[in-house]
Amino acid sequence: MRDVAVIGVGMNRWGELWEKSHRRIWTEAALEAIADAGVDHVDALYVGCMSGGLFMGQEHLGALLADQLGMGPIPGTRVESACASGGLAFRQAYLAVASGEHDIVLASGLEKMTDVDGGAATYALSTAADQEYECYHGITFPGLYAMMARVHMHRYGTTREQLARVAVKNHANGLLNPLAQFQSRITVEDVVRSVLVADPLRVLDCSPITDGAAAVILAALPQKGSKREPVKVAASAAATDTIALHDREDIAWLRSTDVAAAKAYAQAGITPEDLSFCEVHDCFTIAEVMVIEALGLTGRGKGGEAAASGMTALGGRVPVNPSGGLKSKGHPVGATGIAQVREAVLQLRGESEGRQVEGARWGLTQNMGGTGASSVVHIFTRA
Amino acid sequence: MRDVAVIGVGMNRWGELWEKSHRRIWTEAALEAIADAGVDHVDALYVGCMSGGLFMGQEHLGALLADQLGMGPIPGTRVESACASGGLAFRQAYLAVASGEHDIVLASGLEKMTDVDGGAATYALSTAADQEYECYHGITFPGLYAMMARVHMHRYGTTREQLARVAVKNHANGLLNPLAQFQSRITVEDVVRSVLVADPLRVLDCSPITDGAAAVILAALPQKGSKREPVKVAASAAATDTIALHDREDIAWLRSTDVAAAKAYAQAGITPEDLSFCEVHDCFTIAEVMVIEALGLTGRGKGGEAAASGMTALGGRVPVNPSGGLKSKGHPVGATGIAQVREAVLQLRGESEGRQVEGARWGLTQNMGGTGASSVVHIFTRA
Repeated sequence: MRDVAVIGVGMNRWGELWEKSHRRIWTEAALEAIADAGVDHVDALYVGCMSGGLFMGQEHLGALLADQLGMGPIPGTRVESACASGGLAFRQAYLAVASGEHDIVLASGLEKMTDVDGGAATYALSTAADQEYECYHGITFPGLYAMMARVHMHRYGTTREQLARVAVKNHANGLLNPLAQFQSRITVEDVVRSVLVADPLRVLDCSPITDGAAAVILAALPQKGSKREPVKVAASAAATDTIALHDREDIAWLRSTDVAAAKAYAQAGITPEDLSFCEVHDCFTIAEVMVIEALGLTGRGKGGEAAASGMTALGGRVPVNPSGGLKSKGHPVGATGIAQVREAVLQLRGESEGRQVEGARWGLTQNMGGTGASSVVHIFTRA
Repeated sequence: MRDVAVIGVGMNRWGELWEKSHRRIWTEAALEAIADAGVDHVDALYVGCMSGGLFMGQEHLGALLADQLGMGPIPGTRVESACASGGLAFRQAYLAVASGEHDIVLASGLEKMTDVDGGAATYALSTAADQEYECYHGITFPGLYAMMARVHMHRYGTTREQLARVAVKNHANGLLNPLAQFQSRITVEDVVRSVLVADPLRVLDCSPITDGAAAVILAALPQKGSKREPVKVAASAAATDTIALHDREDIAWLRSTDVAAAKAYAQAGITPEDLSFCEVHDCFTIAEVMVIEALGLTGRGKGGEAAASGMTALGGRVPVNPSGGLKSKGHPVGATGIAQVREAVLQLRGESEGRQVEGARWGLTQNMGGTGASSVVHIFTRA
């Protein structure tokens, strides 16, 4: 396979974008990525979107967006893996370039979630879980993650305050990201006093409902005369776990992230100790805690201490979610995995103003669907 | 890129499968393909599904089905391109093997469409068109294809009877396919006297709403000691057109099929004259007429004569839809592209009992989304 790099990135301000259609949101991000890369065309596009049907009443986004970009008849492919749709779309784009099938590919993600009411959004998100065996009985995602949190707290002594520290850290980082949905400092007290959603998770433990898109341009290495410093895709891996929580041997362990990360480290030839930073899937505070364990950043059961100790803060041993993460940056589900790649690229280029990880050399992105039924891990480094 | 072959196929009887869940339907097809190939595992799976959200209330099918197969933690990827979802999923699976990333991959398609009422099914299907610029004004797919038919009839003299002949031919073929949804002979008179849907299209011009799945196994060539004769993927190509009909220069011409087919012929090193048979996207009778023109089987505007003259019948110059096509076999939208590949493989193995194209050497599959906003073309030959 050919070596592949990201040569351009684009993203708009995320939030409740009432005044913009999904195609407008996506096209802004895509055109920015194309301009950033300095290319005049792409050979194909991929788009991660979780539920075009339920959120927007629009499937067939690959074709629609190729048309919208004015670049038809290029192939347009939509990839879906719930909240890991963006990461998995990036992976298919990577394979398309690595294989030699295409030379320049746009990988993107999109979700417009606020055009339906809250109940409909909760239903749409619940289609990432096992509808027949989980949701039919009334549970939704906060409840599923709350059960994971309960087990983690019971078994490992993870505390309510430790969970809150994840949200506090990610909001602090989001303050430094002009594109983040929430740009507000919060305290541990704010989190633990916020509205209860599913005990022990409160509303400030949860990532929000968001409209947004992100896009990146992939190309084969070596890139001669490229406008931006190429950032190499050093590893790409995906894995799955049981879709239903009740089928797992251990609901406090993210097997899909563990398996995908192990493959990715082997492919890149590095260990977790080599990482300069990570962008991970903190859909709930407990998710970040469990993800960093599965990535090997801390020992099993030790993830709760990480945010509280400052290890994962900017300036800590391995900053996690310098972008603000899903918690603060927002979580337009299909776009999240691509925005993680954008942050990794900016960090490795040294362009993450205000939140730059000094001397960043290796960055990892981890994007996850459902309660971890799917995970996608990528590792990046300077080309 | 490595050469890739299909080494196993599976499909269940299609129809209104009230007694089976979507996961059961899919798993039957997947296990049959695995058994047919004689493999004991797959490295990854792809599934084409158009609207898991609107038809089944279930997204995240890649992970769910890997789990259902008992083969987690393998990566599971859902691909969507409306009614071309199956064909595009096959293409991503092909790239995954051709690139060297995976050695044995399951490509599949699934749609369970009958668990919602007719209005909801029509709405779900309409998300393949441009919701904001087409469907908002009240049009659905029969209306869109009816407009294409009107132009074709006006400009080229295509007749009502010629359209009917497509349905008659495909029903005759479906009678020979034990897995087809409709196994009934129809006449031209039956078609032209059937209920009007969108003038000039009548109900017997339209493919049905169907539950069904199909699966195939891809592997790198050469395959040593494989159970079945491998069938080589000689070409894979995808292309797009404007999603809205009103944006096209010519609504009686399928640009996406034309572009994808031209690439595929070049890749395979053949011309349309070399084809032994084709499986094409006859979602409406006019679609088959226009597709065979775009594939170069007939001159522009000459597609209407093809079925009427017997050219595309079994025993004709180039049989089209020996399986019965979407019209008779059924059209569970995400599964259609994979069922086309299955038919091509059976034909090239010489195993299409009762409907075998004698001496079949080259077979083409063409799968299409919307009114042709996306098309995927594959060419197969004996390895």
